[in-house]
Amino acid sequence: MQTITVKLEQRSYDIDVGVHHLSAAQKLVAALPTPRAIIISNTTVAPLYGQALEDALNTAGVITKTLNLPDGEAFKTLETLDSIFDFLLINAVDRNTTLIALGGGVIGDIVGFAAATYQRGMPFVQVPTTLLALVDSSVGGKTAVNHPRGKNMIGAFYQPKYVLADIGVLSTLPSREFNAGLAEVIKYGLILDARFFDWLETNIDALLARDYAALEYAVARCCEIKAQVVAADERETAKEGGRALLNLGHTFGHAIETGLGYGQWLHGEAVACGMLCAAKFSQQFCGFDAASVARVKHILERANLPIALPSIDKLTTQDMLYHMGRDKKNEAAQIRLILMRKIGEAFVDGTHSADKISDFIASNRS
Amino acid sequence: MQTITVKLEQRSYDIDVGVHHLSAAQKLVAALPTPRAIIISNTTVAPLYGQALEDALNTAGVITKTLNLPDGEAFKTLETLDSIFDFLLINAVDRNTTLIALGGGVIGDIVGFAAATYQRGMPFVQVPTTLLALVDSSVGGKTAVNHPRGKNMIGAFYQPKYVLADIGVLSTLPSREFNAGLAEVIKYGLILDARFFDWLETNIDALLARDYAALEYAVARCCEIKAQVVAADERETAKEGGRALLNLGHTFGHAIETGLGYGQWLHGEAVACGMLCAAKFSQQFCGFDAASVARVKHILERANLPIALPSIDKLTTQDMLYHMGRDKKNEAAQIRLILMRKIGEAFVDGTHSADKISDFIASNRS
Repeated sequence: MQTITVKLEQRSYDIDVGVHHLSAAQKLVAALPTPRAIIISNTTVAPLYGQALEDALNTAGVITKTLNLPDGEAFKTLETLDSIFDFLLINAVDRNTTLIALGGGVIGDIVGFAAATYQRGMPFVQVPTTLLALVDSSVGGKTAVNHPRGKNMIGAFYQPKYVLADIGVLSTLPSREFNAGLAEVIKYGLILDARFFDWLETNIDALLARDYAALEYAVARCCEIKAQVVAADERETAKEGGRALLNLGHTFGHAIETGLGYGQWLHGEAVACGMLCAAKFSQQFCGFDAASVARVKHILERANLPIALPSIDKLTTQDMLYHMGRDKKNEAAQIRLILMRKIGEAFVDGTHSADKISDFIASNRS
Repeated sequence: MQTITVKLEQRSYDIDVGVHHLSAAQKLVAALPTPRAIIISNTTVAPLYGQALEDALNTAGVITKTLNLPDGEAFKTLETLDSIFDFLLINAVDRNTTLIALGGGVIGDIVGFAAATYQRGMPFVQVPTTLLALVDSSVGGKTAVNHPRGKNMIGAFYQPKYVLADIGVLSTLPSREFNAGLAEVIKYGLILDARFFDWLETNIDALLARDYAALEYAVARCCEIKAQVVAADERETAKEGGRALLNLGHTFGHAIETGLGYGQWLHGEAVACGMLCAAKFSQQFCGFDAASVARVKHILERANLPIALPSIDKLTTQDMLYHMGRDKKNEAAQIRLILMRKIGEAFVDGTHSADKISDFIASNRS
């Protein structure tokens, strides 16, 4: 097991990356300020891991209640959030009880936001059960729900008290979701760590075969990179680089997700396609070389991820631009993209006009 | 004009208490990180003060847009919040634009919560237009919306960048709302400042006549007390005293508000009745003397505030207990009351059983 600490002064916390340690809940229990917890999961994950977690907590003397939400990005809404508040109020849950998010990115984001806002804030813990959640969404304190007009538009920065990252849960993850998680793994190599990108090219087969050793290395490395970035720029206020770099592929990707309707493409799939867009855009305007574009394309293909934009009859270029124009990174209506100078070296670029971006998208449509 | 600083390190901000300085917006403009602002008000306040504020900002080169919400506590909901998000997204508002809350406590609370959660946080400024907002809700960063099951149950601690407290706006405030604000003014004397309570007894007629000098003194003193309490305990985590003391009368009061349905009684009216409950409960169980109870009752009567609990056919004792059982201050299902040893000396007391509180309420019903 490896422990990675996210260093944020009094908000610091540990991520324990290991294999099959979900039931070894000592550190989780130690993170709870009172022996009361609410486990919030979904109807897919709860039957697999809910009982083991509940038993571990109950054995340690923690009183638990469980709420299972419907599964999927389409449910990451204010309405679902309200159903969580209903449950908490019906059960007279106080603000010193801990919310435990057991699930993927959707569960982590919505439960984190519920914890940030129920009675103005209660403790929470993340137990991620997808690759995407393990390497990305469970770390760093970004919580949110979607709005029909934009992905993750409503949320808060709110750090968990602890992250229990059990690689063992990946054994039951459907391939499509596993591959979508690989998109975020690849992202870390592209933005900040060329050597890790090399390692991924060499080890992609082991990862796809769900080799625990390869997965533990990859997950821990992603968490290390993210912990560093978050520690340096917790609330994404850095003018250059910083936390915004973690958005590589996300400006195009969020527009795909929102434009198609949540749940049509998985988040990681949209990010994969968005990263190739960013690579090609970087080639065209920022000197990113053709060989690197080919490497990006190749590894995404190896991971069975979509690399072509949705067809025009499903998502017009105009609609994509509309959604990119509402991206959270924008300032004074200027779209800000995350681009690459080379593999492992991403940067924020707010110098390209909407017309130029529109032309680029149009010329990349099939 | 008096300036009171709320000292919260990098989140510190000034409250400028003055008369008719709404249009002198230099300090407000200086508090904006970019020359873009959204003024959110309601259909009652906007026709009175919206144009003056907008003109002052536009003259200083700030681009503004305005959204007017329906007026009243019944609209402090997740649904109204969603309508703010809609407006912001339709107008492609970015997270460096400032939200300006122009209105009373409802506007301040909901706009503050929108600012806390839109794109995970944007700057905001308070321009309070009721006595209650001037002395209490605009200071200290508590933002929230109500839930059908509980007052202010969903919210965040989120500090404004600046508070423009213009006493002049009180000239247009309806008497019922003015009196409700006096309840919170009286509260500050009761919890922490016996001399201020003496001053209020002496000057209640001047306040009711809306004498600007008396009002400026009272508002500034309330803001000073609140700024001190908030600086010492920003997130209400102190075990003894601290921010929870500001809840004198609110445990009973919130139960009245929620139980009757939001908007039946004004918040300050419910707090007034709740403070007399707290005084009587303190007399019965904590040595608060009968003469002090009489003083509390007398000043509330002078301010034309309700001192009798709603009748049983409108709100049963059982319902009141139900709502008190969901108060945010509670811990492990134990109701925590704010009580008084003497005038100017409040404390938190979590030692009384629900049965005892229930008997107390029942014996105080007409």
